[in-house]
Amino acid sequence: MRKRRAAGPAQPIRAGLLGIGTVGRGTWEVLARNADEIQRRAGRAIRITRIADTAIERARAIAGGKAGVTADAFAVTRARDIDIVIELIGGTGIARKLVLDAIRHRKHVVTANKALLAKHGNEIFAAAQQQGVMVAFEAAVGGGIPIIKALREGLSANRIEWIAGIINGTSNFILSEMRDKGLQFGAVLKEAQRKGYAEADPAFDIEGVDAAHKLTILAALAFGIPMQLDKAYTEGIAALTTQDIRYAEELGYRIKLLGITRRARQGIELRVHPTLVPAKRLIANVEGVMNAVLVKGDAVGPTLYYGAGAGSQPTASAVVADLIDVTRLITADPEHRVPHLAFQPDQLSDEPILPIGDVETSYYLRMRVRDQPGVLADITRILADSSISIDAMVQKEPGEGERRVDIVVLTHLAVEKNVDAALRRIESLATVVGRVTRIRLEELL
Amino acid sequence: MRKRRAAGPAQPIRAGLLGIGTVGRGTWEVLARNADEIQRRAGRAIRITRIADTAIERARAIAGGKAGVTADAFAVTRARDIDIVIELIGGTGIARKLVLDAIRHRKHVVTANKALLAKHGNEIFAAAQQQGVMVAFEAAVGGGIPIIKALREGLSANRIEWIAGIINGTSNFILSEMRDKGLQFGAVLKEAQRKGYAEADPAFDIEGVDAAHKLTILAALAFGIPMQLDKAYTEGIAALTTQDIRYAEELGYRIKLLGITRRARQGIELRVHPTLVPAKRLIANVEGVMNAVLVKGDAVGPTLYYGAGAGSQPTASAVVADLIDVTRLITADPEHRVPHLAFQPDQLSDEPILPIGDVETSYYLRMRVRDQPGVLADITRILADSSISIDAMVQKEPGEGERRVDIVVLTHLAVEKNVDAALRRIESLATVVGRVTRIRLEELL
Repeated sequence: MRKRRAAGPAQPIRAGLLGIGTVGRGTWEVLARNADEIQRRAGRAIRITRIADTAIERARAIAGGKAGVTADAFAVTRARDIDIVIELIGGTGIARKLVLDAIRHRKHVVTANKALLAKHGNEIFAAAQQQGVMVAFEAAVGGGIPIIKALREGLSANRIEWIAGIINGTSNFILSEMRDKGLQFGAVLKEAQRKGYAEADPAFDIEGVDAAHKLTILAALAFGIPMQLDKAYTEGIAALTTQDIRYAEELGYRIKLLGITRRARQGIELRVHPTLVPAKRLIANVEGVMNAVLVKGDAVGPTLYYGAGAGSQPTASAVVADLIDVTRLITADPEHRVPHLAFQPDQLSDEPILPIGDVETSYYLRMRVRDQPGVLADITRILADSSISIDAMVQKEPGEGERRVDIVVLTHLAVEKNVDAALRRIESLATVVGRVTRIRLEELL
Repeated sequence: MRKRRAAGPAQPIRAGLLGIGTVGRGTWEVLARNADEIQRRAGRAIRITRIADTAIERARAIAGGKAGVTADAFAVTRARDIDIVIELIGGTGIARKLVLDAIRHRKHVVTANKALLAKHGNEIFAAAQQQGVMVAFEAAVGGGIPIIKALREGLSANRIEWIAGIINGTSNFILSEMRDKGLQFGAVLKEAQRKGYAEADPAFDIEGVDAAHKLTILAALAFGIPMQLDKAYTEGIAALTTQDIRYAEELGYRIKLLGITRRARQGIELRVHPTLVPAKRLIANVEGVMNAVLVKGDAVGPTLYYGAGAGSQPTASAVVADLIDVTRLITADPEHRVPHLAFQPDQLSDEPILPIGDVETSYYLRMRVRDQPGVLADITRILADSSISIDAMVQKEPGEGERRVDIVVLTHLAVEKNVDAALRRIESLATVVGRVTRIRLEELL
């Protein structure tokens, strides 16, 4: 009689794949193509032995008989012959149930699901902690860029001061194209949709929601705080005009959709919004769908991590790296593993997230005014009253016959609620036409 | 009677520091300043309890009674109350003896010593393997940039195709200044020495030796090959002129001292030399003393890692990250640890290093010729005879009264020994004045 035994050091690790869509297929391909290289690194083979997908025929065609295919994902999370569950379904509904079920059945989990972790990470990591399993999520932020590992391990000597990241490729593609081609937002969005860089419903990307999910995860790792997605300030790129992009350019800045999290005096900033960045900064020159994350540590100074933030193979690169990490530590005691959120679970901080009104940053302000005496004096007086000091002020010459001119103001550091109050007063001036455009500005030094 | 016991999970890790110079002092400071944060991450305290330095009074002043100070480094490598030895002495003489002695006494080792690893890494890692101890060396390449971790763990799913890195800050500072200010090499070198960016004897940096040490380490990690410093091709920046920098600029390129290692068909390229890089690449925009490493993996595509490549605190950031990693795995079985050279020690590859003559790359060629008919025809025929095809050719108009003009040729991919042969023939033409300047060119795609 043979005894059933768990996978030992020399036996292949058996992974169950939930969802064989774009990233799932990439994961399957990378594991197959680089099987030899991966085994030379990991010391043992890693195989996907079960796949769950509702498109069962398609899944069978990909698997080619090399993995069992089922439409019942719970059959995989509960299978006794599975060591690691790879969750690539996405969303926060069934994916949450499956991840928690896998953990309950003492499976280690690898996931690329940023929405799930940003919303339910606290619950998931607590469950994983209790069951002594790993939940690895390198693919959740920055696609193939090993930014989670850099933050959690590479920079572990540092007190992290701030992070600023281009963490949504769709938005970055749109902003790059608007600048390059001088096209307005709507036209570029259509092009992005045609090229497959933007979804038919692009809200998730262009409104900054996806970036907020990723930023929430980065902030947790950087500062040792729980996931607090509901406290993130989120502003998208749909309102940006090529005119502002051009004015910014003339002043030496690029506009990027950044996720920014910073340890400020009163609390932690957590915000996603279009941001003017000096054109000479490396991150200002990250173009197209690429991602980059700038991390400032107190010892190391600024470091930057750049690469493909999405796509089948790049994201699979991160998923498989996690599989290798988990494989290596699968028989180790939990104390030998890196804590899920970089800090020991009993060492999380309760530092509060700052409301956006309390955030201090610089601003680009553009206002259209009637070209008549006194208007500049009114504006500068209002700004001074609100303790907002001016770094630069440019009046754009009116076109021939035009009676309205654009005034662009760059401010020094100011508290956002003071800026809001000043803008309300400026907008009430009879000489000011319409709303003031307000875009935050970061020197990133 | 109390029993003596080794440091358990809850007790502080005791590190012995060899050499408290620039980086040693940074390490001491970071461990002290961020002690709380580090313990929250690592799960236990990490303390330097012994310091060895010949400048014993200075060391005592820094330690302030918090660590035992000795001039005898071997007293630290052999101390029974030391868990990890931090080697920050540098060089390949006494440092080698100390590292091997520490390993022999079953101490884990953290080192920033690239020369030591590039020259004696094979011996050192074999000894570490035998004794079951870790040798961590994040600080040896790219200062505080966690590039070793990225290569060894973050990109472990990939077959690495190539790496191109700005891994010597001194050279990059000099090239940045030559371009910015239009100054010649000698003048900028003097400025760099005045600012402390270059040593009094700058050969090590400007001749590419330091970069070759680091590249040797990166190549080992990327391709699973032993350290083979003696096979690295090394060419420095001293011969570069501002004229070539300007010509390159006009053609859309920047000149950087790159360490390049690539998996080619016949073997592995391992070379350090000035390189034309398209100006729009991110790495072409890395200025001053900063470092950046571009890594191309088959799944992830290109990724880039940027940060301070030297300096007290940035390098200490890497040293302390290694201390935290080692601390976490100190009581784990060796199978739970990442292999020193990324691949399992019995899985190293014997793929050969290509001689530089067999390397295939593109070239920037500048030649000064007499401005007379037929000269271009002669040059293009010689290039064609050697199977070198021309991507672009620019004739610089002669100044008034000048009878000599500069011709700049950019080639497509060509084998170096063919280029060498062609250049010898071109230089023998009566119409060609002096030597042809030859700088390699990489598109980095």
